[in-house]
Amino acid sequence: MQIALAEAQAAAERGEVPVGAVVVLGGTIIARAGNETRQNNDPTAHAEIVAIRRACEVLGQERLPGADLYVTLEPCAMCAAAISFARIRRLYFGAIDEKGGGVEHGARFYSQPTCHHAPEVYSGIGDIASTNLLRGFFRGKRDL
Amino acid sequence: MQIALAEAQAAAERGEVPVGAVVVLGGTIIARAGNETRQNNDPTAHAEIVAIRRACEVLGQERLPGADLYVTLEPCAMCAAAISFARIRRLYFGAIDEKGGGVEHGARFYSQPTCHHAPEVYSGIGDIASTNLLRGFFRGKRDL
Repeated sequence: MQIALAEAQAAAERGEVPVGAVVVLGGTIIARAGNETRQNNDPTAHAEIVAIRRACEVLGQERLPGADLYVTLEPCAMCAAAISFARIRRLYFGAIDEKGGGVEHGARFYSQPTCHHAPEVYSGIGDIASTNLLRGFFRGKRDL
Repeated sequence: MQIALAEAQAAAERGEVPVGAVVVLGGTIIARAGNETRQNNDPTAHAEIVAIRRACEVLGQERLPGADLYVTLEPCAMCAAAISFARIRRLYFGAIDEKGGGVEHGARFYSQPTCHHAPEVYSGIGDIASTNLLRGFFRGKRDL
């Protein structure tokens, strides 16, 4: 999660909403990413999506069975579904996201009958550091 | 929708689940795509995601206000959320997807308090042709 937080910090420095994600398989980091929506003009380039796409590219496979994903913020519905499609084994996330989350809020994707693979979910890891990064980022935006 | 169906047909010929999508803005096709999950080893490369990413790239912008999306199958939760993030104005889709849909089934993303932009939704357009493509594809798979 420390590396995911470092990716979130790096995202903030690029002017992106500070969220970071890391894909780990067998104790090895396969891919790491921060949000890239602005720099790439890509509304789907959330940290989780970018990290999953990179990990699949690195491994040359469409799915990531046995891999775990660490992300600093509760995934939205888009990312929650992508994590399911990638067959991620365990999802560790930091802060909850009441406004946009799709795991413990809103769509609650893993509880739906349309979800055909749910990862084990562990939340609250590094949540204070994650929240502080997000708060600092949006406070800075308001002060501009 | 005829062009989206042609993209779905082309996807089937590549061995991909036959779903196609088209982004239209001001009467002009900005991007068209079929599923590319297998050929790209990318579980996020659903037709809608690929078409939205291409349209954003073509226009050099992160969002597509005023644009409409035509897709042959009810979007899943991942794509429904991506359509929202892209600020798509109108979503036209073909067949419903009871097992995996995220608009009228499961996550019902546009009805959630975590959804901050919902497109107008029109369904059932070209649904018989879409369903026939999907049925033919999966029947062919079973017969292999």
